[in-house]
Amino acid sequence: MYLDNSATTRVNDEVLEEMLPYFNEEFGNPSTLYSIGRESKKALELARQRIADSINAKSDEIIFTSGGSESDNLAIKGIAFKLQKKGRHIITSEIEHPAVKETLYFLESLDFKVTYLPVYENGIIKIEDLKEAITPETILITIMHGNNEIGTLQPIEEIGQIAHDNGIVFHTDAVQTFGKVEIDVEKQNIDLLSVSSHKINGPKGVGAIYIKKGIRLVPLIHGGGQERGIRSGTENVPGIVGFGKAAELACSNLEEHAQKQSKIRDEIIEKVLDKIPEAYLNGDRNQRLPNVINFRFKAIEGESLILLLDANGYQTSTGSACSSKTLEASPVLTALGLDPVDVHGSLRISLSPDTGDFDVDDFVDVIAKSVERLRQMSPLWNNDLDYNKIVGRK
Amino acid sequence: MYLDNSATTRVNDEVLEEMLPYFNEEFGNPSTLYSIGRESKKALELARQRIADSINAKSDEIIFTSGGSESDNLAIKGIAFKLQKKGRHIITSEIEHPAVKETLYFLESLDFKVTYLPVYENGIIKIEDLKEAITPETILITIMHGNNEIGTLQPIEEIGQIAHDNGIVFHTDAVQTFGKVEIDVEKQNIDLLSVSSHKINGPKGVGAIYIKKGIRLVPLIHGGGQERGIRSGTENVPGIVGFGKAAELACSNLEEHAQKQSKIRDEIIEKVLDKIPEAYLNGDRNQRLPNVINFRFKAIEGESLILLLDANGYQTSTGSACSSKTLEASPVLTALGLDPVDVHGSLRISLSPDTGDFDVDDFVDVIAKSVERLRQMSPLWNNDLDYNKIVGRK
Repeated sequence: MYLDNSATTRVNDEVLEEMLPYFNEEFGNPSTLYSIGRESKKALELARQRIADSINAKSDEIIFTSGGSESDNLAIKGIAFKLQKKGRHIITSEIEHPAVKETLYFLESLDFKVTYLPVYENGIIKIEDLKEAITPETILITIMHGNNEIGTLQPIEEIGQIAHDNGIVFHTDAVQTFGKVEIDVEKQNIDLLSVSSHKINGPKGVGAIYIKKGIRLVPLIHGGGQERGIRSGTENVPGIVGFGKAAELACSNLEEHAQKQSKIRDEIIEKVLDKIPEAYLNGDRNQRLPNVINFRFKAIEGESLILLLDANGYQTSTGSACSSKTLEASPVLTALGLDPVDVHGSLRISLSPDTGDFDVDDFVDVIAKSVERLRQMSPLWNNDLDYNKIVGRK
Repeated sequence: MYLDNSATTRVNDEVLEEMLPYFNEEFGNPSTLYSIGRESKKALELARQRIADSINAKSDEIIFTSGGSESDNLAIKGIAFKLQKKGRHIITSEIEHPAVKETLYFLESLDFKVTYLPVYENGIIKIEDLKEAITPETILITIMHGNNEIGTLQPIEEIGQIAHDNGIVFHTDAVQTFGKVEIDVEKQNIDLLSVSSHKINGPKGVGAIYIKKGIRLVPLIHGGGQERGIRSGTENVPGIVGFGKAAELACSNLEEHAQKQSKIRDEIIEKVLDKIPEAYLNGDRNQRLPNVINFRFKAIEGESLILLLDANGYQTSTGSACSSKTLEASPVLTALGLDPVDVHGSLRISLSPDTGDFDVDDFVDVIAKSVERLRQMSPLWNNDLDYNKIVGRK
């Protein structure tokens, strides 16, 4: 049972089927003048319309990229370089995806100033903090819609309103929310929005950015002038076609998918918290994605837990796939103000619309037994040792 | 008959077959710890090894990107930002791909200085010009291997030698040559090399950059630290798998493919020049790609010619797909010192290993008739009108 859909998803069969002809039949370059290029161009524009429709945008406000990370980099660097003469201050949150955070670190190395808003124990920023952080130098607010590790949702409509009241551009990384909760760029006051295909049962290697009409930015990839000069490079036609179809499938069934997933989500949360001692839910109980759960279990290592679960046929993760290569504590969980020891005992479970019916009781049972087994080996469980002292931390 | 393989190619059936399982079976995120991620990771590393083997590099010198344009941007901006304290001068040629040229224009806007070496009538730079252009401020030489419009090859081994003699980094855009002429990064003194999948019968949306061990650059896409921190973003596993297979197929049969294509190429060149009056080959006759031909025909418009050829079942182009959206004269042909009027009468024919046997005589006959028909309508053919005067140019 694959339960790591926040990391990536299986490509939907209908999506793959729609992509296939563009590999070896309608393979023309959309920029060419003759017949085979026109078919590719038509497919590209249909996909663009589908993405636009799914967020209440116009199709010429959608630019295709190679994925969410590129979209985030384009949005943030693009605005920073464009508006640097106006000001060099950017506001973000402490729990952004690395594609946002590392981009901001890069800009800090170029003397931009960045304010990182705290998220408190529930994983959500406070609007008052945002208001206080704004200065006359602020050119951009970039705050994610839904968090990739704990699944909490930020109040983006209010954030966007405050941005606009102050003449500031608002970008949101919606990679985890697109196709899962409703997005309306008009209503939610969004200027720039990053989305990705492979999180919604579309192919990897393709994403998009919504750029509100009138917003100008410096391109990240210069070249042949594709995508209205904003993103050069021959368009990944099969990937884009797949993304368009995946978006259509996700967004036209959004309510139904959300209900189905949140039912499973809630059942898992209730049973785990009920059955396992010293188990906690990370992030706000209600303001969260329908498909993401993040637990912490006292006195265990998350890595060991996911390996045990994998051995039992359940594929989960400790948090973001992007940060799993390092053994550092998750910066997202750390930002919740948790004890560094507890941060290591986290488990992320993420569903998708194609998560079949499964035996939640068996799953919870496997988690409970695995946690118990790990705790029996843990020097931290049921004794007074101080882990921070053991590892020499002060 | 598809004869525009420099714009893009059909995905080879074997390539597509090898990609397919990675869409909906082995779809794991290569960064995850558990079983399904390990399969993706293995596939990724096999592809990396295949690309490395095909250019005599080590696999940890290969970084995957979304395509040739991204690779060019990463190479050039990456070195410029990394070495800007050492110097801010870059040397290039007048006929680079827009992904190089537009990137350099962007750097000029940030006060980098760029020298554009002339290419003369044969489309090739002169080594003496390069030597003269070098200053103590020069940090990068970026000169393409094979030109995308006229197919001429630059003396990259000598260029690389001169770069290294002067402690300068050498980047070459090998998008058109990879898989078509031999590349040996060691022997050819290359530090950075851009390649693309969709020009060698692989999928669109994937490319790579070779970065010689020891060369450091600033990332273009910051984020989760994939690709050793040089290129963040979830890896496009199916695309990368396809690229690896396409590279293997292209490079293991390189000699045979080159011979087959250059035979057709030479036959077309001879027959066209023989049969059609005032027809000329653009670019050096010998120092050229085995698969690219670029003609000019006096007194016609290339756009009209390719539409006539398309109507007769032959898909060709006037030059780069990337610049076909504008009606401006090709900067590449202009750099050859041609009359602006003649520049508009160009035709690019580009072959691929899967170009089947075809009736060259019929093709040349169709070109000849189309050219004749267009000339009958042309005010420039067989009369003394001066086109520059007609359009008000001085």
